[in-house]
Amino acid sequence: MNTYKKNKIRGKEVTDLGLGNNIFDDNQRVINRDGSFNIKRKGIPFRESFSVYQWLISMSWVKFCCLILITYLVVNIFFATLYYIGGDANFEGIETNNNFDRFLNEFFFSTQTFTTVGYGRINPVGVYSNIISSIESLTGLLSLALATGLLYGRFVKPVAKIIYSDTAVIAPYKDISGLQFRIANKRRDHQMVDVEVDVLLSKIENDKAMFYNLKLEYRKVSFFTTAWTVNHPIDEDSPLSGMTEKDLKDIDAEFFILLKGFDDTFAQVVHSRSSYKYNEIVWGAKFVSLYGKDDDGKTIIELDKISEYYKVALPQLELKTG
Amino acid sequence: MNTYKKNKIRGKEVTDLGLGNNIFDDNQRVINRDGSFNIKRKGIPFRESFSVYQWLISMSWVKFCCLILITYLVVNIFFATLYYIGGDANFEGIETNNNFDRFLNEFFFSTQTFTTVGYGRINPVGVYSNIISSIESLTGLLSLALATGLLYGRFVKPVAKIIYSDTAVIAPYKDISGLQFRIANKRRDHQMVDVEVDVLLSKIENDKAMFYNLKLEYRKVSFFTTAWTVNHPIDEDSPLSGMTEKDLKDIDAEFFILLKGFDDTFAQVVHSRSSYKYNEIVWGAKFVSLYGKDDDGKTIIELDKISEYYKVALPQLELKTG
Amino acid sequence: MNTYKKNKIRGKEVTDLGLGNNIFDDNQRVINRDGSFNIKRKGIPFRESFSVYQWLISMSWVKFCCLILITYLVVNIFFATLYYIGGDANFEGIETNNNFDRFLNEFFFSTQTFTTVGYGRINPVGVYSNIISSIESLTGLLSLALATGLLYGRFVKPVAKIIYSDTAVIAPYKDISGLQFRIANKRRDHQMVDVEVDVLLSKIENDKAMFYNLKLEYRKVSFFTTAWTVNHPIDEDSPLSGMTEKDLKDIDAEFFILLKGFDDTFAQVVHSRSSYKYNEIVWGAKFVSLYGKDDDGKTIIELDKISEYYKVALPQLELKTG
Amino acid sequence: MNTYKKNKIRGKEVTDLGLGNNIFDDNQRVINRDGSFNIKRKGIPFRESFSVYQWLISMSWVKFCCLILITYLVVNIFFATLYYIGGDANFEGIETNNNFDRFLNEFFFSTQTFTTVGYGRINPVGVYSNIISSIESLTGLLSLALATGLLYGRFVKPVAKIIYSDTAVIAPYKDISGLQFRIANKRRDHQMVDVEVDVLLSKIENDKAMFYNLKLEYRKVSFFTTAWTVNHPIDEDSPLSGMTEKDLKDIDAEFFILLKGFDDTFAQVVHSRSSYKYNEIVWGAKFVSLYGKDDDGKTIIELDKISEYYKVALPQLELKTG
Repeated sequence: MNTYKKNKIRGKEVTDLGLGNNIFDDNQRVINRDGSFNIKRKGIPFRESFSVYQWLISMSWVKFCCLILITYLVVNIFFATLYYIGGDANFEGIETNNNFDRFLNEFFFSTQTFTTVGYGRINPVGVYSNIISSIESLTGLLSLALATGLLYGRFVKPVAKIIYSDTAVIAPYKDISGLQFRIANKRRDHQMVDVEVDVLLSKIENDKAMFYNLKLEYRKVSFFTTAWTVNHPIDEDSPLSGMTEKDLKDIDAEFFILLKGFDDTFAQVVHSRSSYKYNEIVWGAKFVSLYGKDDDGKTIIELDKISEYYKVALPQLELKTG
Repeated sequence: MNTYKKNKIRGKEVTDLGLGNNIFDDNQRVINRDGSFNIKRKGIPFRESFSVYQWLISMSWVKFCCLILITYLVVNIFFATLYYIGGDANFEGIETNNNFDRFLNEFFFSTQTFTTVGYGRINPVGVYSNIISSIESLTGLLSLALATGLLYGRFVKPVAKIIYSDTAVIAPYKDISGLQFRIANKRRDHQMVDVEVDVLLSKIENDKAMFYNLKLEYRKVSFFTTAWTVNHPIDEDSPLSGMTEKDLKDIDAEFFILLKGFDDTFAQVVHSRSSYKYNEIVWGAKFVSLYGKDDDGKTIIELDKISEYYKVALPQLELKTG
Repeated sequence: MNTYKKNKIRGKEVTDLGLGNNIFDDNQRVINRDGSFNIKRKGIPFRESFSVYQWLISMSWVKFCCLILITYLVVNIFFATLYYIGGDANFEGIETNNNFDRFLNEFFFSTQTFTTVGYGRINPVGVYSNIISSIESLTGLLSLALATGLLYGRFVKPVAKIIYSDTAVIAPYKDISGLQFRIANKRRDHQMVDVEVDVLLSKIENDKAMFYNLKLEYRKVSFFTTAWTVNHPIDEDSPLSGMTEKDLKDIDAEFFILLKGFDDTFAQVVHSRSSYKYNEIVWGAKFVSLYGKDDDGKTIIELDKISEYYKVALPQLELKTG
Repeated sequence: MNTYKKNKIRGKEVTDLGLGNNIFDDNQRVINRDGSFNIKRKGIPFRESFSVYQWLISMSWVKFCCLILITYLVVNIFFATLYYIGGDANFEGIETNNNFDRFLNEFFFSTQTFTTVGYGRINPVGVYSNIISSIESLTGLLSLALATGLLYGRFVKPVAKIIYSDTAVIAPYKDISGLQFRIANKRRDHQMVDVEVDVLLSKIENDKAMFYNLKLEYRKVSFFTTAWTVNHPIDEDSPLSGMTEKDLKDIDAEFFILLKGFDDTFAQVVHSRSSYKYNEIVWGAKFVSLYGKDDDGKTIIELDKISEYYKVALPQLELKTG
């Protein structure tokens, strides 16, 4: 009987979880530390898989402002060209014989129309320019409506900002060991309640990627104000039972973390993801306490220490650093 | 004892699930492939069952833009008529004796008022035109407010874009068979987590439509980044146990699929629906792998192969193609 | 042993569910048919318990439009008065010696400023009028911002529109009876999925109001496209077991219904409430089928028949109409 | 055998729930009565932990209006300065030789541009002033878009307004005692359904803070229209079993309350938090009834009595006031 095998593969097995069960390349992580996925997709036309909304919502503010300015420029050049085509009898207030000056005046008239500021010194008198400008001002209003939605979406996008400790540790826990990592809420004023964490182990087995749910000491906390040390006790049922540091490397282990909770400020459920690769696990270590006293004797929590640990001996023989 | 019957009707039975249990016409699907329902309703006045919001949100962008343009035209003709009725002493800046020209000028003045561009060359001087134009500019602002909400609703409508394989297959699974179909997330950048799938079998039995929940190998995946082969093992408890391809046709089988998951970009739970009719099931087939390597040796997933399968022999005698 | 008592009080008892357990007046329903509550509250200052948002969101469209018009009028009279106080040297374009005419001109100037239409024939030249008008135009913009939110809130308020059958029935069900009522989705285009129903019995017992959860044949349906007959089997464990029509009256029975489901169009969970008082229960009746065929032989569902029933004999002796 | 210990530590223990398990200072509450947390954080740069959105959403309306006015002033002074730098040939309509007057005129022109009111008496003629003003009017529109989102966020922020009784009581309950507190919905028109309550006991044990979930008589009510007396029966399994008033003080007990429910008006799940410190528990008391009759004999509920109680003897010997 292959006891070794039996010791190695335990816990609730999850074969296909949308990640595919082919072999990933060595050292290629599936989930990046910032929660994004590291998988290349092919076969869906760009037009169908691309989401304009996602693109506009997730680009940086600098890029977003540039994009708005460029769009503004392009739209006004477009309408200025239309006005220019209409000829010089179409406007009151443009008194120039220079063609470039006329275009410039029509460009500024266009900006005044698009933003509906409409000073009126330059104003349309012909039917043609009136029609174009009535369409432009409508376009301006609808663009404002769109911008409102986009800015709202960008500004209030409900995302959890969770700090994960740089490494996970294998720490002594009761009579056995535990796989532990530490998380904290980065946001000072966004309280999170009803927070749940799921941890999955991905490993290579017979040239196939397999996934296991790790049982946690606590899956859920009602209040998550400061920091939480998530703990997977490595008991007999754990898929990590009896494994060494080298074993983890051999099976190309990666631990996926999925966190969700209710954010008070957004009044919505928010999510966060991260992962630890086998080489981000410290064997035989405990996290240092985050709690201290300030000058007034009040309890404070020092979040810059979230990744700090000290080495300790592991209680069990089965868990040796390879 | 009617063993045949007993073999045929198993699993948790669901008699009435809002679909009614009358006999549907042969070959009439209940759920279309795009997730819409195929049932005609009667007896509720149009005014009460019609939802303006749903109509405005779900029409195509082309139609929506036309609708806005037409509304803009109609509103301005309406106000221009009101101004016209007021007579020609009401405005400054309209210097014409031609009635059509006056109407045209008042029409353009109306557009300038509605969009609040207000150039001011033409401007109201009489009490009548001032009252009308102050109402029109308010109307314009409120219309903008409405448009903002609508455009936001259209743009950020949180819908899952799921690709379903064209057919489901009856594939060998362990010692038995499994009903399998494949799904993938169409959106490149919208990550989905906590995805759940329910599959229901609808069948005709004694001239009544009955519904059965099918037990899945995995109902839920934490991460759904690429593709997921949903699998219903056809074991002894399955309502499909012992059935042949012809049996499925005889009972007019349709498999309903309901998927829900949390979409990262929308920060909301999204849903998707689809169904497979008995003639969209391939007996004795397996889906081809989606995974390949690109030129750099990196793992890629080829989503255009999502419906591709190859024929295999089924392991069990009970499952014969009719 | 008091068997009668034992027969009468069964099921999971719920003593306090936010409704209080005092005796309600005879025939006073707790929940109105439209889902609103029939309980008077006292002791919280109006200012604290009143919600402006709720008031603005739930008033009729006619009232809402009137409110906007009146606010518009009041705001403009206010600013016109401020302009008037500033004296006649403050504006260009007002050429009148008549005080009322001046006020009228300043009123219209105010509307042009508030809506930001700003024709400019009348325009501020003094510092005083410039300051006031710069504040007014800002006020106008912020009012527009508020109106946008409000109109969005009113327009897309996610409410389930559920039709409940006018009466519930006590119908034969298998060997026993069942308390049944019928519900349908009023909205043509808003699909609902994952719909759950809870039914509570409120009864007077020893001068105290007690509440019982009624066990349903199906609590949840995945798809709710047309109509659903909710059924509470009156088995031995039911608090209704052995009761007669007169018993229900004696205990002042009221059945509370709470429905929730996911609305496809709103992409959100929506709720609906209703209740049946003892005198809205028909003993010994079955609902007629809603299904028919149209001229083309296609299945249709006739929702105007949702409350129609026909009388039948009840299978059990225990359930006699009083 | 240490029976005392065994009596003291019962119930489901929760060691780490994001609150840390260090010793808090005596009398320092963890959760304030208004639901905010009383823990100082350190180590995360202000820029990263500060949330602009949270700050703008949660400040008072008075502060918010001041902030808007000041921003408006600053922005216009900024643009006026830019116009002023451009020199006096850039504008039509400014007829003054006084520099301060020119700046003032340019300031008001700036307000007219930013709010897009654009009267047009003063209007840009030079290229420089045209460019600046076209940027300013765009800035104005985008600011409006942002303000719209913010005002919407402030106005419709979905928060539960729950009144908690000033004190909790230890009241007789069946043969034993119960820890009880009373809650009510402050909002007149916001109906809440599907309300759930969690109560946690925090206590000091061996110099460590430990947390226990308290089992409630009812954790959830379907309807929460008026008031609900939440009750934790102090049975053998309760961590409070056998404790006296002095014991509670010795372990520095604090009871955390987490409430969530679906708010009808916001159509969303809302949360509320509070806590009772050991000195806010009245031993041997019952809450008075909230129900009364008004002049018409209709049942009313008097919410101003929510904290009123009367002293009663406790049924059990184990529970003595210290």
